[in-house]
Parts: sequence; C-alpha cells; structure tokens
Amino acid sequence: MAFEILAEEGKARAGRLTTPHGVIETPSFVPVATWGAVTSLTMEEVRSLGSQVLIANAYHLHLQPGEDLIHRMGGLHRFMGWGGPIMTDSGGFQLFSLGAAKEHGVGKIAPIFPGDRGGHLKRGRGSSLVKLDEDGAEFTSFLDGTIHRVNAETVIELERKLGADIVFVLDECTSPLHDRAYTRAAMERTHRWALRAMAQHGKNPGRQAIFGIVQGGAFRDLRTESARFLAGLRFDGYALGGSLGKSKEEMHGVLEWTVPLLPAHRPRHLLGIGTVDDIWEGVDRGIDLFDCVAPTLMARRGTVFAKGEKGFKVRLMNARFREDHGPIEEGCTCPACRKYSRAYVRHLFAAGEGTAERLASLHNLHFMEEMMREIREAIRKGEFGAMKRRWVG
Amino acid sequence: MAFEILAEEGKARAGRLTTPHGVIETPSFVPVATWGAVTSLTMEEVRSLGSQVLIANAYHLHLQPGEDLIHRMGGLHRFMGWGGPIMTDSGGFQLFSLGAAKEHGVGKIAPIFPGDRGGHLKRGRGSSLVKLDEDGAEFTSFLDGTIHRVNAETVIELERKLGADIVFVLDECTSPLHDRAYTRAAMERTHRWALRAMAQHGKNPGRQAIFGIVQGGAFRDLRTESARFLAGLRFDGYALGGSLGKSKEEMHGVLEWTVPLLPAHRPRHLLGIGTVDDIWEGVDRGIDLFDCVAPTLMARRGTVFAKGEKGFKVRLMNARFREDHGPIEEGCTCPACRKYSRAYVRHLFAAGEGTAERLASLHNLHFMEEMMREIREAIRKGEFGAMKRRWVG
Repeated sequence: MAFEILAEEGKARAGRLTTPHGVIETPSFVPVATWGAVTSLTMEEVRSLGSQVLIANAYHLHLQPGEDLIHRMGGLHRFMGWGGPIMTDSGGFQLFSLGAAKEHGVGKIAPIFPGDRGGHLKRGRGSSLVKLDEDGAEFTSFLDGTIHRVNAETVIELERKLGADIVFVLDECTSPLHDRAYTRAAMERTHRWALRAMAQHGKNPGRQAIFGIVQGGAFRDLRTESARFLAGLRFDGYALGGSLGKSKEEMHGVLEWTVPLLPAHRPRHLLGIGTVDDIWEGVDRGIDLFDCVAPTLMARRGTVFAKGEKGFKVRLMNARFREDHGPIEEGCTCPACRKYSRAYVRHLFAAGEGTAERLASLHNLHFMEEMMREIREAIRKGEFGAMKRRWVG
Repeated sequence: MAFEILAEEGKARAGRLTTPHGVIETPSFVPVATWGAVTSLTMEEVRSLGSQVLIANAYHLHLQPGEDLIHRMGGLHRFMGWGGPIMTDSGGFQLFSLGAAKEHGVGKIAPIFPGDRGGHLKRGRGSSLVKLDEDGAEFTSFLDGTIHRVNAETVIELERKLGADIVFVLDECTSPLHDRAYTRAAMERTHRWALRAMAQHGKNPGRQAIFGIVQGGAFRDLRTESARFLAGLRFDGYALGGSLGKSKEEMHGVLEWTVPLLPAHRPRHLLGIGTVDDIWEGVDRGIDLFDCVAPTLMARRGTVFAKGEKGFKVRLMNARFREDHGPIEEGCTCPACRKYSRAYVRHLFAAGEGTAERLASLHNLHFMEEMMREIREAIRKGEFGAMKRRWVG
C-alpha cells in the first residue's frame, strides 16, 4: 500500500492511497457496510455516488456468516460484489458497546448525535456482555447467545480470511466516564495487543495493510504516549479510536495532541466520526479518512443532509415539507433529488414505505461524497481555509 | 383508451391496451404501488424490469397524503415520478379487509398464499372497523383512528383527483363464508354503486377509463348475473373481485362462468391474483391483467421465485443456500442475479440488512415480468397451450 501526499494546507492534506483494489483519494469518507452491504443500497449505487472504499466489521461478519464461509466464497470483495478497496474494523468498538458503554450508558463522545461507531448516547445502563482479560475478550453473541472469544492474534487471522485491503488491530475502547488509571491500564493493554497483532500480521502479511489504533481517552498525556508508542511500530496507517471526551472541544484536543506525533507519510483515520462539522474540523487537524454510519442511519430515521440548515440536517417529517415541490436538497444532483420531491419522500416516510429510506440514503451518501470532493479540491487549490469558513464558520 | 386483440389461442389472448400514458401489452402483470411506490424500489428500477403499468390504492392515498395534496402536486403520475400508465384501486377490498374479512378471519380465497389483495387467510377474528350501508361505507383510519366516509360517487371524485389512467368503481367484497343470501344482497348493492359510479364518472370523464367489478362470490348464478349486468353498462374494462371461493377449483369456476359473458373487446382484470399457477390458469381462461403484492411481499420475507422449485418459490433462509455460489435463480438476468450469490443474499437476510429485501424484490418482479413476456409471445405464436403445460402441467 502506497500513500502519497499531493497537497497540503496547514495540517490539512490531499493524498492518494493506493491499495490492491484501487486508489482512494483522500480526505475520504468511508461508508459503513457492517454486514457487507451499505444499508438499502446496492454496490452499483454506492459506486455511482462516488464512494471509493467501504468499511465492514470483522466482529459482525464473524458472527454471521462467519469468516470461513466468506473465505470459501472467495473473500469479502467477491462475496459483497465490491471490487474497490475494503477496510475491516476489528470489533474493538463493538466489544466496548456491549461492555463498558453498556455499563456506563455512554458512547464514544457523550453528547453527540449518530456520528460515532454506533455508540451515541445510550439511554439507561445495563450489564456488560463482555469479559476482558490480558489475552483478549469473551463475549456473548447478540444474535444467538453463543459465547465467543477473540484476541489480538485471532482477530488478525479473522481479518486475513475476510481479505480486506486494510485491517485494524483489536483495541480496547474506554468510556468518557473511565478515570485516568483505568484508561491508562486499557491503553497499555491495547499497546501489548498492538505488538501481538503486528507480530501475527508479520507472519504472513500478503497484500493486507494494517492500521494501529491510538487510545488514551481524553487525557493528553495518555494520548501523547499512545501516539508515540504506536508511531514506533511502523503500521501502514493510524487510527484514532475510543473515547474522544465529553465535547467537541475535547475531541479537537485529542486530534491536536495526537496527529502531529504520527508519521506524516502514513494515512490517519478518525474512527466512527462524523458529522459535517467533525469532518471539516478533522481534516483541518490532519485526518485523511473518516467512517460513519450517519448517512444511512439518519436516512432510516427520515433525516437528510442539506446545506443552509442547522447542523446540515433536516427532518423530512417536518410539516413544512408536506407540499414542497422542491428536491430533498435544493441544487443537489443525486438520483433522488433529480427525480423526486420532498413532498413525495415525506409521504413515503409517513406511510412507512421502504423506498423512503432508500431515497434518503442515496441523498445522504451523495451529499457526503460531494462534500469530500469539495474538500479535496479546496486543499489542492489552497482554498481549504476559506472553504471551511464558508461551510462551518 | 383503446384495446386491440392481436392474437388468440383458445380463450387466451394477447392484446394492446393504449392509455394516455402509454401502451400496455397484455396479458400484463401490474405491480402494486399501494402508497405510490413499489416497496424498496425506485421507479427507474421498476421501469427497467419491464413493468408497464402500476396500481396504486385510492383508499390508502386518501388517508395519506390525501387526494387533494396529490392533485395540487400535479397528480399521481408526477407525484410518484412514474410516466407510464397507472390504475387506482377503489378501496373496496380494503373495506372488506377491515370489515367482513376481519369478522370471518378469512381472505378472498381461504387457503391460498399471499397471492391476493392483502387478504390471505388471517389468524383469528376481530370486530369490523367498517359500517356499510346503501350509500357507501364509514370506516376508522388504521393510521390515526379518524372516521372517514366514502361512497360510489366520492370514490370516483377521489380517483379523478389522483388522475390515474384507469380507475375502479367502489364494490362490496364478500367473504367465502358469506351465505348466498348475503352475497346476493351485496352484489346487488355493488350493482347499484356501479350505476352511480358510472353516472358520476360520465359527468366529467376526461381521459380516465373506468373498470367495473364483477361480484357474486363463488355462486355460479350470482357471478353470471353480475357479469351480465355489468356487461350492459359499457365499462372500459372489467375486473373480477371479491371472494373466489375456497379452492383453486372454485376460482377457476368463477373465471369460466364469468369471462365469456364479458364484452370480448374489453380488457379483463383479475384483482389481487396471483401466484404463478394462478396467472397461467387465468390467462388460459381469458384474463388480460393481474395485480398482486406477492413479488414484493414474498421478497420482504426472504422468499424468491425460481423455476423448477415447488410452487416456483424458494426460501433463501434454507440452510442449503449457506454457501451457494449460484445466483438467486440459475439463468436469471435480473440485476440481483447478474451480480450477487444466493449465499450473500441469504447472509443479508440473516443479518436483517435492508439490501436483502431489495435484491429479492428486483428478482421477483423481474421473474414475473419475464414470465408475462413469455406468455404474450407464446399466445402470438400459438404455443400458449404447450408453454403452459411446460410451466404448470
């Protein structure tokens, strides 16, 4: 895997990541295909919207249909029908969701809307379904109650069988409510897992690239230490994972402390983020890759992206759209906006008709891909700062 | 509206129905777009699968978003984004579903799978939400509990506002458990409503064609009387509605008694039917048009059409497909089969991923449209009888 930086403006950079299954122009948004599909869309559609790379989830695919089956079916690219680059997330965040996040009733950032890896603010608390130890984690399948065990090595083997272009190591995500001592212990364990994962990967790297994950919560010293430690391990790329604090400001802090310590010539991925604002702020602080369920999760709930609206979001069920002849978003060229009115899409949501979610997903993903294209162009032209001010102030 | 018969073989006929929004080659399958969308599909897809005409439901669209809104939005064609011919069903069957069908715990044919207008065998009985009287019907909205009233005239006005090419009159459907006396009384009321609907339509027919609906349950004398009565009213086409008895044999009887009494030069529509068998048997008895929710309803439940399988149906969740590299149906050229394996689609159903329903819907609708194309070609070549034996024995 090769990563070339084509242009820089401040810390923002436009690059080109070359994988065995094609090129990813960065900064790039990575649509989430947890189970090997982007909800309600076909791969042809995802491709036509301009998406360059997808992220599937090793944890989910382990539970259903299983990595061995996918391997026998010719690997994940063939199984999904996606010829482009694929990443697989390790499942570290899912273990957090079923574990500490459940106990604490939180996600990776306490007060943020969907923009995380499924872990926005939860209502109420529960008991953990995960037992973490030095070796790895034991957890109960949410599908059928069976007990599963993973560790630093087995996740790498699991991801090898899936055959993604880029794999993530297993990490332990901490909650914004964990104290410094616990966050440090978890970070140190994550580092030991990273070493083991790297060793396992090195036995048979094939053409797979491997990304390490920086932990350390919202503690500056821990994040700094984690970034330095992982930077020494020569990963192909670096992700920022785990708790990003209790506010946008804390998240920006995490980026500012960490990114400058990572190797400049390696891609940087902000896991499970984000909203429109988060992406501009992330790029401005040197992030190259973002994955997020927001476009399709919002679509399912009838919320669409639109410029000029608060938070770039509109609820289509709002009564003001009842007879709105305009498209979902004025000026948009996506397949939904080219053809259908807000009134029609709103009606389909009101009627509970499945086509509604689909049209909203097409729009939301198109919106995100167009924004990323603008970001890349702006950086290449040295206009990123000006463009960011126009978008998010 | 013009209807031309191009070829006949026995009672089967291949024709061409010309509407203000284009031509329908018959026999034709009419996908159901209850709320103005074919579940999980876009209009472009429906068109690309070969569908020629859609049927929406006046009753549903009255409740949400309302016929006046659709009228102000430029009519149903524009609202839905479908430039081809549209039919609107009157809602007579929905009144039956909420009324007698609920009381009796039955659909239009007691023991049949989904192939009817939503009224397959129900489990358990309930109390009617409909009050029928000589004028029309009062019913409670299943969406918000509001009380609505429709009658023979208001349904025609409602359908005029929607602006479909072909509208159906309001009828009273009876249950297979209704006795002869009730079925006769309901049929006679349906006839009086047909006269009123025709008169209302005649005040301002515009370019809308109007279809009458033959009733009379599975009673030969009543069906005969109803067909004769309606044949005298010069409808643009004729539908067979209501109870089709307690078995396939009774349904075939209803067709054999009725069809020969209808004007030969008018199209004939079998409402809410059917399965693959039903369509071949219907065409063989002179039916030109069929509408049915089966392709999309089955898809939602993970059942797909396939030749060589019992009842032409396969449940994708069957364990034998776990690692099946083949397409949903061997030899199929639909967008789902061209690209995805049974193993993948099965996995998406197992994971509860929305793309699954979509791929199955694409296949099922394509299957149906290809079969109709074969039927039309066979009739034109005088090979319908032979082809029917190959398909359904």
